[in-house]
Amino acid sequence: MKGSEKMNVAILGYGVVGSGVAKVLKENSGIIKEKTGHEFKLTRILDIKDFPLSEYRSIITKNFEDVANDESIDVVVETMGGVEPAFGFVSACLEKGKHVVSSNKELVAVKGAELLEKAKKNNVNFFFEAAVGGGIPVIRPISRCLAGNEINEVAGILNGTTNYILTKMITEGVSFEAALKNAQELGYAEKDPSADVDGIDAMRKICILASLCFGTHLYPDGVYCEGIRRVTLADVAYAEKYGSVIKLVARAEKLSDSKVFAAVSPCFVKKSNMLAGVNDVFNACLVKGDMTGEVLMYGKGAGSEATASAVVGDIIDCADNSEKRKVFGWKNTDADILSNYTEKETALYVRCTVANKPETCRSLKEIFGNVVFLWRNNQPENEIAFVTPVMEEKKLRKILSTTGITVITTIRVFG
Amino acid sequence: MKGSEKMNVAILGYGVVGSGVAKVLKENSGIIKEKTGHEFKLTRILDIKDFPLSEYRSIITKNFEDVANDESIDVVVETMGGVEPAFGFVSACLEKGKHVVSSNKELVAVKGAELLEKAKKNNVNFFFEAAVGGGIPVIRPISRCLAGNEINEVAGILNGTTNYILTKMITEGVSFEAALKNAQELGYAEKDPSADVDGIDAMRKICILASLCFGTHLYPDGVYCEGIRRVTLADVAYAEKYGSVIKLVARAEKLSDSKVFAAVSPCFVKKSNMLAGVNDVFNACLVKGDMTGEVLMYGKGAGSEATASAVVGDIIDCADNSEKRKVFGWKNTDADILSNYTEKETALYVRCTVANKPETCRSLKEIFGNVVFLWRNNQPENEIAFVTPVMEEKKLRKILSTTGITVITTIRVFG
Repeated sequence: MKGSEKMNVAILGYGVVGSGVAKVLKENSGIIKEKTGHEFKLTRILDIKDFPLSEYRSIITKNFEDVANDESIDVVVETMGGVEPAFGFVSACLEKGKHVVSSNKELVAVKGAELLEKAKKNNVNFFFEAAVGGGIPVIRPISRCLAGNEINEVAGILNGTTNYILTKMITEGVSFEAALKNAQELGYAEKDPSADVDGIDAMRKICILASLCFGTHLYPDGVYCEGIRRVTLADVAYAEKYGSVIKLVARAEKLSDSKVFAAVSPCFVKKSNMLAGVNDVFNACLVKGDMTGEVLMYGKGAGSEATASAVVGDIIDCADNSEKRKVFGWKNTDADILSNYTEKETALYVRCTVANKPETCRSLKEIFGNVVFLWRNNQPENEIAFVTPVMEEKKLRKILSTTGITVITTIRVFG
Repeated sequence: MKGSEKMNVAILGYGVVGSGVAKVLKENSGIIKEKTGHEFKLTRILDIKDFPLSEYRSIITKNFEDVANDESIDVVVETMGGVEPAFGFVSACLEKGKHVVSSNKELVAVKGAELLEKAKKNNVNFFFEAAVGGGIPVIRPISRCLAGNEINEVAGILNGTTNYILTKMITEGVSFEAALKNAQELGYAEKDPSADVDGIDAMRKICILASLCFGTHLYPDGVYCEGIRRVTLADVAYAEKYGSVIKLVARAEKLSDSKVFAAVSPCFVKKSNMLAGVNDVFNACLVKGDMTGEVLMYGKGAGSEATASAVVGDIIDCADNSEKRKVFGWKNTDADILSNYTEKETALYVRCTVANKPETCRSLKEIFGNVVFLWRNNQPENEIAFVTPVMEEKKLRKILSTTGITVITTIRVFG
């Protein structure tokens, strides 16, 4: 073996990502061969739809057995999305001794440990670079380049739709509703936008990243997840005065007691933080290694070709490791490793209405010591906004409940 | 083979990086084994100095033959720096069938193609992630994760010392000289700072990146290289008015005629560009893939542990590919692929003195059409500063020479 391979590839799900994979494999086959020594041939596509005009119509099938039972297929690409039937299909392919590459974040977040175990058992690879961060190299840099590091923190802007909406709100002063409508018109947001807007997509991705960084599967159930629906232009204006922008931040931290903190929520992000500069549909992932310090990876978090680029990177890795399984992934656990997010220390931005402004401000200063008051244009007479010092969120909220203020909204401060 | 390996490692050069590698291999051996399945044993260190108190004194040697002739050594780490004797040592190790990992940018920039060829001939791996971007995963993401992309542009802030100095100038308003002195006191700059300050270090790194991205060795000779010595606080102030910061940008572009443009120079970088947010000793590398679009990788560009983290990533890759050579690297060429930088299109910031301000401004507007005039506090009576439209640099400079202005300085505008 000379490190170069000719391999047959099948694609399950010929949608946005699946068709992108076909395109990259075809258009850049010369580059891929030159850079890696490998050649790939797309020999099967599974989809429930008909594609009578597609150049691939002769290899498109509706019957999964045509993939599973075809021994000439070396790598199966799963770009269907959703847990079922993807889980059944991927399991079957791994059990048939085929390498599998997936772009399916829901599948990996829910069934990752199980599929990694199946891959191990069958001595094949199961990779999913495209499931987090779309076209950005994230999974492989973390699992390989930074493997000499203990990683205890990972955070990111992992959803392009919400980042586009927030960027519109911040830079153009349009409301959440108008920005969402604009995103829908551009195809960045679905008709039912809740998976993006309510943070669910980002939450699945941070579960995958936490599992990878900390070595134990973190299941989505119970992870604190809050979207951006209640972020207003008033909050954006106050954030600006705090030298910050509001971003939907997904983050996870390995705690000293081997518990894991994980949460998705809007956050104030200081403009000096690299994450603050991530705008529009771009994503970024920030990890902290004990040896290398902070590393950030930035790029397009979605889109047909960008995501396909990541899938193809995984296909190449399968070819690099065609005869053996690369040690990769994480363990399963039955233990409840998720910590209660309210026990995490944070500073909190608070916007509220008060009966007596000067008195409340004095009293907040007394209670918190170091409290930063913010202002904005057209600030209502009875509204105040401030950022508290860092303390356990539970304690913070308890204290706030005793101050007599009527809280309109709170947003966590990142970092 | 189960994808897990026990391998013996030797280090050539027990300095800042070499000792960091020893530290990472020792302190994080458990993590490395868990994440990758590999175990590494440091069995030899070559250095001309004595280390009588080192825990490794029993394996330290001054005799290179102790490394070259030791068949039990699988991977040799070269962290000596400089072309010789590193080139001779690395060549010998490759010829003896040992994998080699290097952090030596000068060696790779000057001898990369030759060493990659030797590695190929001997069916071993020659990796050098740490030679560009210190602890940031750059080489492997570009060569593997993005291998499905044609890459025609790469740019970066690749030198921490100059970035620290410029950040000090921008955020604290201290002069170049004072910032340099501060960097020297902190150990960020050498006593003779010219390799950093004059852009030579960044130039070597962009040569490596260009070679990797475009597939043909780009030799440092003749690459346009300008440092930051002539950047003043006046320029910093004008840049601010242009919504920009001044950064030492290394960049390379594959031109349509298969020539390569490459240059290192201070640039105005718009604050909306991710590179503008890279401060202090941090580095970042930006690549543009035809499929994935812009990808940026950011982190610590230097330092013992960060650089060692990248070296260890390479050692792991050698273990992943212990039985075969991974296709990796670029070809040599005798052709002169370097284009003349003056033929590249750019906008130019110009600071100059003039005899008659209103008249000159009118005349510049006439000549250039769209010209942006800048101002600063304490601007001398006879000084003007402006940014030209984008055109071929040669033409731009020719036009400027006809305008009767006395140019004090010019700085290119990035992007």
